[in-house]
Amino acid sequence: MAKIGVLLSGCGMYDGTEIHESVITLLALDKKGVEAVCMAPDVEQKDVVNHITGAPESAKRNVLIESARIARGNISDVAKISAEDIDGLIIPGGFGAAKNLSDFAFVGKDAVVNSDVSKLINDMISLKKPVGAICIAPATLTKAAGDKKPKVTIGCDVGTAQAIEAMGGQHVECSVESIVVDEENKIVTTPAYMLGPGIKDIARGIEKLVDKVCELAG
Amino acid sequence: MAKIGVLLSGCGMYDGTEIHESVITLLALDKKGVEAVCMAPDVEQKDVVNHITGAPESAKRNVLIESARIARGNISDVAKISAEDIDGLIIPGGFGAAKNLSDFAFVGKDAVVNSDVSKLINDMISLKKPVGAICIAPATLTKAAGDKKPKVTIGCDVGTAQAIEAMGGQHVECSVESIVVDEENKIVTTPAYMLGPGIKDIARGIEKLVDKVCELAG
Repeated sequence: MAKIGVLLSGCGMYDGTEIHESVITLLALDKKGVEAVCMAPDVEQKDVVNHITGAPESAKRNVLIESARIARGNISDVAKISAEDIDGLIIPGGFGAAKNLSDFAFVGKDAVVNSDVSKLINDMISLKKPVGAICIAPATLTKAAGDKKPKVTIGCDVGTAQAIEAMGGQHVECSVESIVVDEENKIVTTPAYMLGPGIKDIARGIEKLVDKVCELAG
Repeated sequence: MAKIGVLLSGCGMYDGTEIHESVITLLALDKKGVEAVCMAPDVEQKDVVNHITGAPESAKRNVLIESARIARGNISDVAKISAEDIDGLIIPGGFGAAKNLSDFAFVGKDAVVNSDVSKLINDMISLKKPVGAICIAPATLTKAAGDKKPKVTIGCDVGTAQAIEAMGGQHVECSVESIVVDEENKIVTTPAYMLGPGIKDIARGIEKLVDKVCELAG
């Protein structure tokens, strides 16, 4: 059975992983008979956001512990996962992917990527194993692997696309039900909730991304 | 467009709504062109549980605010939703359905159901509008509407089935990919993660439940 890593970044779109995107990824992997290996960094969240008001809360939360809510407890510290352990990697979106995996949401093109996340992404690409990134996650992926000139999409947001180009990436516009494939680097991306509008729409693009990542994993 | 209420109870299987069950419900509703009306009680969670260790944490969290993570912010206080507003109601599982919607997880058959939740469930049944309940949620549903002798399933757990019978319900064993339909009360139930084993398996039962609730909603 193939093993595909799913790199989470908390639990909730404003301060963690986008929940719909991650669950649709897990469902699509299970339907294909692929084992999902959930992981997240064992670090404090950059912030905790009230998902009704959008306002920050004073509480502290840990990215790995909150990600475990999506993974039903079956999750590892990303620092303990090697690219040798998995056949492919998928990074769902949500602000967590640009707050907790890197700080792209705060500083844009000058972002710093979590070192364990950066190592895993670069090791995957070096080993010619596929990496999928959803929604805003391609920004963090691009910052980690900008020297490889990754071809990615975040939909059609001009500012984010310019930041991706500034980090070394090549941005391609894409609709929500489609994917962009960088055949050379084996990178697959889809806009999901960068475009929306609804859960059935993002599911179409994510299911294609999962199919392609599994195909490239061989 | 039909409107189906989705009654959440937090965000995470050990202290709130089961995330996979709720997202699969939202996806299935959207695929059918039905509007999901997310709601939850505006009360403090009974507990906050570390989803890696299973241990309780000292932090306080609010059920409505945490549920908003699953609903992407588009959520109402259940106290402000009337049975007149929706064509059907679905209650996903997770311990939250038996900790925050009632206290069934702590006291079994002697459970007390949140008064707003109890009123909404009973008003729906009185108006002949369908109510679906997933996983452990049928226990809270049964306690709320035991006088109507609801026919429900929680899979095959003997202790829980006995408690359901003690609360006035009729328990029917059911496999994870199937549903139990109480035609008289228009109640539809499926075991989901009471049985598992995986996300693709629970999706089959939940998709049938959503189909049936929508059919009964007319």
